[in-house]
Amino acid sequence: MTDQFSKKAEAWSARFTEPVSDLVKRYTASVFFDKRLAPYDIQGSLAHAEMLAAQGIISEQDRAEIERGMAQIKGEIEAGSFEWLLDLEDVHLNIEKRLTELVGDAGKRLHTGRSRNDQVATDIRLYVRAAIDDILGLLAALRGALLDLAERHADTIMPGFTHLQVAQPITFGHHMLAYVEMFGRDAERMRDARRRVNRLPLGAAALAGTTFPIDRLRVARTLGFEDVCHNSLDAVSDRDFAIEFTAAAALVMVHVSRFSEELVMWMSPRIGFIDIADRFCTGSSIMPQKKNPDVPELARGKTGRVVGHLNGLLMLMKGQPLAYNKDNQEDKEPLFDTIDTLTDTLRIFADMAGGITVKAGNMRAAALQGYATATDLADYLVKKGLPFRDAHEAVAHAVRACDDAQCDLAEMSLEQLRAFSPLIEQDVFAVLTLEGSVAARDHVGGTAPNQVRQAIARVRQQLAE
Amino acid sequence: MTDQFSKKAEAWSARFTEPVSDLVKRYTASVFFDKRLAPYDIQGSLAHAEMLAAQGIISEQDRAEIERGMAQIKGEIEAGSFEWLLDLEDVHLNIEKRLTELVGDAGKRLHTGRSRNDQVATDIRLYVRAAIDDILGLLAALRGALLDLAERHADTIMPGFTHLQVAQPITFGHHMLAYVEMFGRDAERMRDARRRVNRLPLGAAALAGTTFPIDRLRVARTLGFEDVCHNSLDAVSDRDFAIEFTAAAALVMVHVSRFSEELVMWMSPRIGFIDIADRFCTGSSIMPQKKNPDVPELARGKTGRVVGHLNGLLMLMKGQPLAYNKDNQEDKEPLFDTIDTLTDTLRIFADMAGGITVKAGNMRAAALQGYATATDLADYLVKKGLPFRDAHEAVAHAVRACDDAQCDLAEMSLEQLRAFSPLIEQDVFAVLTLEGSVAARDHVGGTAPNQVRQAIARVRQQLAE
Amino acid sequence: MTDQFSKKAEAWSARFTEPVSDLVKRYTASVFFDKRLAPYDIQGSLAHAEMLAAQGIISEQDRAEIERGMAQIKGEIEAGSFEWLLDLEDVHLNIEKRLTELVGDAGKRLHTGRSRNDQVATDIRLYVRAAIDDILGLLAALRGALLDLAERHADTIMPGFTHLQVAQPITFGHHMLAYVEMFGRDAERMRDARRRVNRLPLGAAALAGTTFPIDRLRVARTLGFEDVCHNSLDAVSDRDFAIEFTAAAALVMVHVSRFSEELVMWMSPRIGFIDIADRFCTGSSIMPQKKNPDVPELARGKTGRVVGHLNGLLMLMKGQPLAYNKDNQEDKEPLFDTIDTLTDTLRIFADMAGGITVKAGNMRAAALQGYATATDLADYLVKKGLPFRDAHEAVAHAVRACDDAQCDLAEMSLEQLRAFSPLIEQDVFAVLTLEGSVAARDHVGGTAPNQVRQAIARVRQQLAE
Amino acid sequence: MTDQFSKKAEAWSARFTEPVSDLVKRYTASVFFDKRLAPYDIQGSLAHAEMLAAQGIISEQDRAEIERGMAQIKGEIEAGSFEWLLDLEDVHLNIEKRLTELVGDAGKRLHTGRSRNDQVATDIRLYVRAAIDDILGLLAALRGALLDLAERHADTIMPGFTHLQVAQPITFGHHMLAYVEMFGRDAERMRDARRRVNRLPLGAAALAGTTFPIDRLRVARTLGFEDVCHNSLDAVSDRDFAIEFTAAAALVMVHVSRFSEELVMWMSPRIGFIDIADRFCTGSSIMPQKKNPDVPELARGKTGRVVGHLNGLLMLMKGQPLAYNKDNQEDKEPLFDTIDTLTDTLRIFADMAGGITVKAGNMRAAALQGYATATDLADYLVKKGLPFRDAHEAVAHAVRACDDAQCDLAEMSLEQLRAFSPLIEQDVFAVLTLEGSVAARDHVGGTAPNQVRQAIARVRQQLAE
Repeated sequence: MTDQFSKKAEAWSARFTEPVSDLVKRYTASVFFDKRLAPYDIQGSLAHAEMLAAQGIISEQDRAEIERGMAQIKGEIEAGSFEWLLDLEDVHLNIEKRLTELVGDAGKRLHTGRSRNDQVATDIRLYVRAAIDDILGLLAALRGALLDLAERHADTIMPGFTHLQVAQPITFGHHMLAYVEMFGRDAERMRDARRRVNRLPLGAAALAGTTFPIDRLRVARTLGFEDVCHNSLDAVSDRDFAIEFTAAAALVMVHVSRFSEELVMWMSPRIGFIDIADRFCTGSSIMPQKKNPDVPELARGKTGRVVGHLNGLLMLMKGQPLAYNKDNQEDKEPLFDTIDTLTDTLRIFADMAGGITVKAGNMRAAALQGYATATDLADYLVKKGLPFRDAHEAVAHAVRACDDAQCDLAEMSLEQLRAFSPLIEQDVFAVLTLEGSVAARDHVGGTAPNQVRQAIARVRQQLAE
Repeated sequence: MTDQFSKKAEAWSARFTEPVSDLVKRYTASVFFDKRLAPYDIQGSLAHAEMLAAQGIISEQDRAEIERGMAQIKGEIEAGSFEWLLDLEDVHLNIEKRLTELVGDAGKRLHTGRSRNDQVATDIRLYVRAAIDDILGLLAALRGALLDLAERHADTIMPGFTHLQVAQPITFGHHMLAYVEMFGRDAERMRDARRRVNRLPLGAAALAGTTFPIDRLRVARTLGFEDVCHNSLDAVSDRDFAIEFTAAAALVMVHVSRFSEELVMWMSPRIGFIDIADRFCTGSSIMPQKKNPDVPELARGKTGRVVGHLNGLLMLMKGQPLAYNKDNQEDKEPLFDTIDTLTDTLRIFADMAGGITVKAGNMRAAALQGYATATDLADYLVKKGLPFRDAHEAVAHAVRACDDAQCDLAEMSLEQLRAFSPLIEQDVFAVLTLEGSVAARDHVGGTAPNQVRQAIARVRQQLAE
Repeated sequence: MTDQFSKKAEAWSARFTEPVSDLVKRYTASVFFDKRLAPYDIQGSLAHAEMLAAQGIISEQDRAEIERGMAQIKGEIEAGSFEWLLDLEDVHLNIEKRLTELVGDAGKRLHTGRSRNDQVATDIRLYVRAAIDDILGLLAALRGALLDLAERHADTIMPGFTHLQVAQPITFGHHMLAYVEMFGRDAERMRDARRRVNRLPLGAAALAGTTFPIDRLRVARTLGFEDVCHNSLDAVSDRDFAIEFTAAAALVMVHVSRFSEELVMWMSPRIGFIDIADRFCTGSSIMPQKKNPDVPELARGKTGRVVGHLNGLLMLMKGQPLAYNKDNQEDKEPLFDTIDTLTDTLRIFADMAGGITVKAGNMRAAALQGYATATDLADYLVKKGLPFRDAHEAVAHAVRACDDAQCDLAEMSLEQLRAFSPLIEQDVFAVLTLEGSVAARDHVGGTAPNQVRQAIARVRQQLAE
Repeated sequence: MTDQFSKKAEAWSARFTEPVSDLVKRYTASVFFDKRLAPYDIQGSLAHAEMLAAQGIISEQDRAEIERGMAQIKGEIEAGSFEWLLDLEDVHLNIEKRLTELVGDAGKRLHTGRSRNDQVATDIRLYVRAAIDDILGLLAALRGALLDLAERHADTIMPGFTHLQVAQPITFGHHMLAYVEMFGRDAERMRDARRRVNRLPLGAAALAGTTFPIDRLRVARTLGFEDVCHNSLDAVSDRDFAIEFTAAAALVMVHVSRFSEELVMWMSPRIGFIDIADRFCTGSSIMPQKKNPDVPELARGKTGRVVGHLNGLLMLMKGQPLAYNKDNQEDKEPLFDTIDTLTDTLRIFADMAGGITVKAGNMRAAALQGYATATDLADYLVKKGLPFRDAHEAVAHAVRACDDAQCDLAEMSLEQLRAFSPLIEQDVFAVLTLEGSVAARDHVGGTAPNQVRQAIARVRQQLAE
């Protein structure tokens, strides 16, 4: 009986007439990717053992043995000396088998009142919870780096684009704050998801609960869960939390992709708004002159990866009857890869934000192309009493005349401008400057440097809380 | 100038040398799907006008005219007499043009200090917020109907499956409560998403804010928004809220698909656990005997539809530079269809839950197939002192013997059972009954009828709050 | 019995005790989107009736009656006078009911030996086949328009980018040909998909075939199908062809999105490589100066839509047991919308290609930024005997010196260049010109104007075949 | 200069002022997943070198040296002694660096006239081509196994389901042939995709072709490509072939998921149509009686994985400007994982098909539930002259009567049956038997055993060709 675990198939061999085929073992085994759950598996087992002892289901002695064994296993894993066996299928059986080797019958008692179904659900939740905490830190770091950049350029004027056409002058600081907002919402979503991750499935056993007098709230407290899962069938089959987390991660990556798109474009020589430090760029094997913004490009590409995982997870769960089915094993690799991709990407972006050099001259030159202050002229006319729609029309005529004459609105004479509306007077030229235009948008959320600085202070305050 | 709107192209014609082609008009127009936003567009315009007047940007008289015009427009739309013009591209220009017809210059002043970019963003948020409120009501109704069903069957025993193999006996009430939990999490997610929907973009104007002394917080209050969007570039280009909502909707549909899968399977004659009322079923054009569970099948199919929309929206936003791009117009149809699909599906399921007839005899018969109480026997042995792993092994041998003898565990004699463990005594037969098994899982989340009733009471309490 | 069809529920009422609820009718009805299949439904029915008569299953008289009735129905539908009834659920029952009204018992005999399952499968295949033929024409038109553009600019030099950094000079004609290749592959894929669409499911009846002595090959010939579906269960449940078509459509849209991205970027004022005719652009409701490339932006956005449909269809079919399930009704809307989106987009792009104005001066200026001929210098050194890797290294040093000196490689003196390699001689300046660089890439697929013209001729030839 | 490769950053160091950061190196390196391309990289390099020598671009001596070096490298890789360095970023630089160590300047000349952009595109195409050839073999093996199963059960009657309701009797052999058809279409699609994979990008160099007098057709011939890519920009940036392959793979997995769904359901005890050999099943850690069909469940779950990859790849390419961008590096992992998943799954299914035991008694019993011959009765009445719609109605009444009387149609007396139609005579009972029903569907694609055997022969013939 001590050989129960010597091959995975033996774990349930007494009911089976032939062993699992090798191909099947490889196909169904998860140990090579789920071994990263080991610390959480041990943490969960210890909390379970503590409760079993407190409830008198196992002896204090058994619990002490289990703790001793687990401490050794943890050490072995950290030292890299733990022997992971494909034959034992997954992280759980590998650890339990080793435990039984180390502490004998106490090890065999650990699985009392639980099943791998609720065990693995608990492990993943502990793991995702830790990942969310990491990600929240990285989002804060990235937002902090963007705030620094925004502060340095609260007055740096660049063209604001819509449809990639010059729309109105804005400041680079204001532009950076748009991303600060996006990553701020991402943090909110991660925190919301965390609440639903942070519920204890353990105690659901295989699917229906257990006949042992367990105390689920005690285990929840020990493990820092805010609540227990209130239905055992749901507890073992629920992967909503993985999907919700991945959906939140996909949105982070969409934001990263938008920022990356802009960085890549801004570094293109015709635009030339920024430079990215060499350490974030690579060259070409054939073209000696190349310096390529590989990091944002690759990050943009990785967006599809995470969205693909989200899609895979949703499809995985579609139409699954209750309770646990083996399909669910497929939740782990996409989830793990999402977490790895997201943490690596956020870490590198927080670092790269400090390596962005702004070419203010090019930005200003670009803002002067494209009649960026045309709206200001329309607003000016409205303030003189013209209905907005008529003002819009008058300015459209003026822009077309400028286009023909190859000049900017500010380069026209007062005479010329008055041809489009007799309401235009000498004071018009103040509203046609870039600085005037930017400063005039002085309300919550507007691009005025004054507002940008207030917005920075507001987010700094939030991050400090 | 009064003909400014007579063709959409004229709205910006002064700058253009040729009109938009007819094919392009059809391709780029949104009025045939965005006209459903009309009530929200009017609501937003009225709040904007109220603020403009309060800030002295337009006169009280203008505001009154705008209100009068909008009241008439609202009436015309409700009466179906409003003439929607493709040439006017979208809901916003259609309404504004009609307003100008009705109230002249006051209508032309309405667009002061705003742009279609922040206007449409406001409209959609108002619309999604209302949809979420609807959906929350429908989720509560569905949960209520499932609670009723659960309560009627708190004691009805059925086999609990894992891997579609008989695992342990559970109650049908307990099974229904798993879905109550899922739809409960859905409601949580919808409420979380609502907070991020419920922020005001208006005031961002085209992308940078406006030069008029607007009061965004006033508009937010008028419209019931909890906060304003704090960056204008983000405000006009953000579609996170649509994606987050659609992700939450996709999860609801995944839950619906799982429930549907079970309903379809349970109604298959070999399983025969339930019947669904005729009014939710359809027949066959060729096979006279058929009664098909069309509703759950179709709902299961619609899961892909909503997940497809989620994917489409994520792809839409991937790599979009700031601020607004025309790509964003593609957010509406998937969002609208998601809302329609979700509300129709929830409404029909809340109704259908009351049309489910449980065939308790078939459920019980099925629970007697497949050694559903084998775990109870293992637990029994553990309680007699055997380590769990050894107990598991002993019972596996017993099951195999039953399999050979074509009998259930409870049908073996004490003698026969003792062959697998001398610890087995006369009291074993109590644990081998379905009722005993179910009643023994008596802890939070367990399948004991007692726990099922407590869980029902708990959710009823929540729903009542 | 003549009222059999008066309400859809009556089509199978004799077996049912209560009628389908109104909500269910709306939820399950497809007539409002599947009525576009009407011409194909009639075409299929006529071919079926022709075969039934030829096989003696119905009389010639019945067949004549059916033809007469269908001719009238076709006329009514085209005239818009046909009354579509929700109660009759779908296009098939609507037409059959009207037929029975018109021709009595002959109409009731039409459904002999078939079921709606194989009927709808036949209709969709006929419809998709026609759509593919349309799309092949549109792809050819778009490729033709791009070839014209390429020919006009076979010598127009622009910078070739990798990583949006200037890589090497290319011609605009060569760049256009990249898209000609992509859309050419799309046509290949559409043709491949067409073969698998073009197989006849009719005769599969509900799922198992029919007891009538039908001749499926005859029906296939009549309808122009290349083969019959060889298994009846597969025939009624197969939606592979819809998925394969949608996957091919998604790739077309990805190509459109790439082209659109470039058009939008090229029209941005800092880049200024092209202008798009006004009739494909729109303006802004607030910014009077704006001219926005709405069509390519919107097309880029529509990529997500089609990919979303692909995902939805794959998810729809995942895990569906054989044979027909109601889920399958959800294949139609995504398929129809994919076809509409694709045909509209291709049509508008074929048109827009003729409205692109190339700004050759800006392209040339851009090609002179970024050391586009650095690779030519490396190749020059290799031809003088230096191993490629060493040549690459030498040129990298030269580029860095140019960067410091703010000059181009061609602006360095021979003296200066020789500092990086003594192999450089006077003839180097020929390879440093844009024209020299472009002309030197003179092999199949290379950017030399000579090759571009040959490639154009080659594709023209293919299109003419 | 021999240290050029000692760190990857050095490959382009002369142009850079600071080395790439370690975090960036890890983020951008691909060597840990692209090293599986090594055999194809070497194959491609040898063909390239052969052509360079034939064209006189490098010397015969250089070519010989390169061959010698590559042979050694190949040996080292196969022996596991090759040292892969993260610092060298990818498989290409790792091999080239080692080559240069081994053969000096000849190694440095290998990269003449090519770039990593066309090199990696060539490698992947060679790799995917080989994968497709594998997959075609596995699809044939799986179809062969299903044919064997079908042949053994050409007469075994089971209920055919639509909507999981009993529809008409079919044979198990016929059912298996539905999957034979699906996997047959998959093979067609794979072959079609192969033609588009099998085109040579090499010679496109970085993006524009090369100034060396290369002979691309020669390289294509050497490597077995059917054609060259006809536009250099397209050649380096095209990933259509990866997407098309993954789309075809996703459809295979959808078919696998449908088959798996049925296997899992059929093995559920209430249905009990089949058993799957123990070696493809696993047990439970808690429930001693369990035998779970893990393989089909896991395969069903893996469908989402592959569809997720497809989605990721489409999103990756969306909106990418020409030519190569670093985003493209993200094509490899999803592609590799798709290939691994698909080949493993097909291999295990081909094996498992032989381990399916059919429980013919249960199938027959199930076919007797649900009035499976009702359509036969309707057809019988039609043959007696009743229009089909009227026959359908009459039988519906009969079924309802049976339902009330809890009997099957065949169990009614002639008297009773005639109550529903006076056309019914003694010969009706022949059509109400399962065997009669099945045998009567005797046309191409029908379920008659006769047709099943012909279909088997037909596919066997195809596979043998």
